[in-house]
Amino acid sequence: MNIIDIILKKRNGEKLNKQEINYVISEYTNDKIPDYQISALLMAIYFRGMDDEEASFLTSAMLNSGDTLDLSKISGVKVDKHSTGGVGDKTSLVVAPIVASLGIKVAKMSGRGLGHTGGTIDKLESIPGYDVSISEEDFIRQINDIGIALVGQTKKLAPADKKLYALRDVTGTVDSIPLIASSIMSKKLATGADVIVLDVKVGEGAFMKNVDDARKLATLMVNIGKLQNKKVVAVLTDMSSPLGMAVGNSLEVIEAIDTLNGNGPKDFTELCVVASAELILEAGYAKNIEEAKELANRQIANKEGLNKLVELVKAQHGDYLYILNPSRFEKSKYVYNVLSVKEGYINNINSLDIGNASMKLGAGRLSLDDKINPRVGIVLTKKPGDYINKGDIIAKIFSDDVLDKNIYNLILNAYRVEDVYNKVPLIIDIIK
Amino acid sequence: MNIIDIILKKRNGEKLNKQEINYVISEYTNDKIPDYQISALLMAIYFRGMDDEEASFLTSAMLNSGDTLDLSKISGVKVDKHSTGGVGDKTSLVVAPIVASLGIKVAKMSGRGLGHTGGTIDKLESIPGYDVSISEEDFIRQINDIGIALVGQTKKLAPADKKLYALRDVTGTVDSIPLIASSIMSKKLATGADVIVLDVKVGEGAFMKNVDDARKLATLMVNIGKLQNKKVVAVLTDMSSPLGMAVGNSLEVIEAIDTLNGNGPKDFTELCVVASAELILEAGYAKNIEEAKELANRQIANKEGLNKLVELVKAQHGDYLYILNPSRFEKSKYVYNVLSVKEGYINNINSLDIGNASMKLGAGRLSLDDKINPRVGIVLTKKPGDYINKGDIIAKIFSDDVLDKNIYNLILNAYRVEDVYNKVPLIIDIIK
Repeated sequence: MNIIDIILKKRNGEKLNKQEINYVISEYTNDKIPDYQISALLMAIYFRGMDDEEASFLTSAMLNSGDTLDLSKISGVKVDKHSTGGVGDKTSLVVAPIVASLGIKVAKMSGRGLGHTGGTIDKLESIPGYDVSISEEDFIRQINDIGIALVGQTKKLAPADKKLYALRDVTGTVDSIPLIASSIMSKKLATGADVIVLDVKVGEGAFMKNVDDARKLATLMVNIGKLQNKKVVAVLTDMSSPLGMAVGNSLEVIEAIDTLNGNGPKDFTELCVVASAELILEAGYAKNIEEAKELANRQIANKEGLNKLVELVKAQHGDYLYILNPSRFEKSKYVYNVLSVKEGYINNINSLDIGNASMKLGAGRLSLDDKINPRVGIVLTKKPGDYINKGDIIAKIFSDDVLDKNIYNLILNAYRVEDVYNKVPLIIDIIK
Repeated sequence: MNIIDIILKKRNGEKLNKQEINYVISEYTNDKIPDYQISALLMAIYFRGMDDEEASFLTSAMLNSGDTLDLSKISGVKVDKHSTGGVGDKTSLVVAPIVASLGIKVAKMSGRGLGHTGGTIDKLESIPGYDVSISEEDFIRQINDIGIALVGQTKKLAPADKKLYALRDVTGTVDSIPLIASSIMSKKLATGADVIVLDVKVGEGAFMKNVDDARKLATLMVNIGKLQNKKVVAVLTDMSSPLGMAVGNSLEVIEAIDTLNGNGPKDFTELCVVASAELILEAGYAKNIEEAKELANRQIANKEGLNKLVELVKAQHGDYLYILNPSRFEKSKYVYNVLSVKEGYINNINSLDIGNASMKLGAGRLSLDDKINPRVGIVLTKKPGDYINKGDIIAKIFSDDVLDKNIYNLILNAYRVEDVYNKVPLIIDIIK
C-alpha cells in the first residue's frame, strides 16, 4: 500500500476502503508516514468528504490506535452523554444523576475546558475534595456500587486522534464534518458505553455555526454509532445564547443543584429532561419518550436525582455538604452588576462573547496548562425573551479582581436588544 | 502574516494577494514554513485553482527565489522555445538554428530528459565534443557573436520551484494547472527572453492527457507571460504518437539534420516551420504569419538553418563534421526489425510505450544520475495513416544488447491498427 496512491484516490473523489484507512492511521501513529502527506490527505478529505462507512472505518482505526475501556464487568446497560461544547453547558451534572438514579449505569469520562467553552471535569473540581482521577478499577467498582462515575480521561484513548487533531489545527483542516465526527466518536466509543446521547451545539459559541452543518455532523455521528452497533441519539441544541443563567465553574454547579432541586432555569431544565429521557428510552427503561420524560421529571421532583449527585460526590471524596447547601461555595471577592443601556426585547446573548468574558475572568483557560479559578464567572439575570429598560441589571460579574471595563463591555455588548422578540427554540431537532 | 490564515483563505475559495504569495514562497524557501502546511495549501490550490494574476504572482515569487539571467548585454530581440516534453521531440534543434539564421537572438537553456521523455541537452551531447556547460559570460558573448547558444541550466534558477516540485511529487499535487504553469514559467522567465514559444504537448505520452487541460495550461502560461510583459505563444500539439520517426539521442539529431536539409518527416517539419514562424512573427521579423512561414521554409531550402547549426556546434566545441555528414554518428551494435502481426491502418503509436521502450534500451534515464547511451533508440518506419500488412517492418530497434523480447513487444503493441484511419491533426491550436 502506498500513501501517494491513497492521497490521489481521495483527491479524485474515490472512496477509501478499510485497509487503506487502517494503513494510514497505523503508519501515521507510528511516525512512518510524514505529516506533509497526511496534511495533503486531510485537505483532500476536507474537499471530497467521506461517506458514513469511510468515517466509521476512520473512527475504528483511531479508536484502535490506543487503549479502550472494558465495561464488561459492569452489569446492565451502560450509558454516556457528550456535548460538542458550549457556554454554560452543565447538562451532564444534571442528566447523569437523573438517569443513574433509575438504575441505568453511567460511565462517563469527561474532558477539561479550552478557550471559551467549559469542561465538566473543571466544574466538578470546584466541589472541594472531588477527585476526578480515580483508577480504572475503582471507576468500575464505583459504577457497580452506586451506578455512576464522572471522571477525567485517564487512559490513552485514541492517540491517533490526538496526533491528527494537532496537525489539523495548523493546516486549515479542522472544520471537516467527517473528521470532526470520527474524532468525537473515536473517543466516545473507546469508553465502551452501549447508549450515547450527543448534544450537538449550534451557533456563534459552538463548533458548528449553522443548523445544516450541525445536522450533517449529528447524522454522521449517529450513523457511525449504528455501524459500530451502538445506540446513538443526537440532540441539536441552540448555542446562539448561553445555556441557563450561570457561566463559570462553581456557579454552574450551583445551577445544576438548583435544577436537580426543581428550581433550574426553564430552558436548561427542558434540555436536561429531554437528554435524560432519550437515554432512559434507549436504555430500555421506558416504553416511549413521554413515559421517559415523566420518569426524568419524577426523579427531579422526588429529589432522587439530587440524592444520586450527593452519592457520586461522596464516592469521589468530595464534600457533599456543598451539594446539600450550595451557599457553602466560596464567593468571588467582587460582584459587579451589568446595567442595560438599551430598552427592548433581548433577542440573543452572544455566547462566544460571554464565554470569552468568563475565560478572561479566570473561569477558563487558553492553554491546557493554565489554572482556572472556580469562583469567578457570570450570571445572566435577563435572558432572551425578557423585556428590559435602561438601567436594568442584565448580568452579574463574579470577579476576584477590580472591575475590568473591557470585560464589562464585552458582556454588555453581547446582548442584542430589539423591538420585537423572535423566539429561537432551544431544541432544534433530535436525530437517531 | 500567518500561513494558517493563508491556507484557510485559499481553502475557502478566496484569492491570495501578492504579499501573501511572496510570504509563502520566501518563508518556505528559507525553511521557515514546514512542509505539512505547504502541502495542505497545495492541495487547497489543486481544488480551488488560481486565477491568472495569482499564478503570475506565484511565478514571480519563484522566479525571484533564485538567480536570473541578465541578457541586457545582448542587442536585439531575444527568443526562447520550450516544450512541455514529448517523445521524439527534437524541435528545438531545428527551430533554434532557423530563427537564429535570420538574425534573431536565441538564448536557450535546456534541461535533461527524465523518464520516457528526452531532453535537448542529452541530444546535443551525442555530437562528440559538444559542451553544454559554458559560462554565463561565454553564453552571452556567443549569442552576440553568432546569434545562438544552446546550453544546460547552469545557474540556480527558481530554487523555490525545485523545492515545491519535490513536495508536490509526494503529496498528490502535481497535476494542478496553475502549479504546472507557474513552475514552467518561473524557469522560462528566469532566463530573460523577450519572446517565448511554448510547445504544449497533449496525449498519452505527455503531461497533459486531454486537449481541454492542455488548452487551460497554455492559456494560463500565455497570460502569465503577458502579465510579465513578455510575448508568449503556445502551440498545442498532439503527442498521442511520437513526433517524427526517430526516438533516441543521436537518432534524433540525425533527423533534425535531415529536416534542416529539407528531408525531414512531414509532420515534424510542419511543426518546426510553425514554431519558427511564431517566433519570427513575434520578434518582428515578418509582417504576418504567412510571410513568417515563408521565411522559415526559405531558411531550410537555402541551408541557412543548417549552416547556423554547424556554427553553433563549432562554437560549443562539437565536431561539426557530424552535422555535415551524419553517417559519422556511431551506430548501435545491433539493429532489429519489428514486424507487424496485423494488417490495416495505423491510427496511433502509443508514445508513452515508445518512450519507455527507448528508455529501457538506454536512451533515457529513470533518475537524474543515470547515464544515457547516445547510440540506441527506435526509428519508426511506419506512421499513423500508413496501411500495413502482416510481416511489414514497422520499426527498427537500435540496441547495444541482444534483443529484449519485452522491449520488442512493447513497441509492437504500441501500434493501434484498425480498418479505418481517423486523422488527428498534429497542431491542435495556437494560443497567444
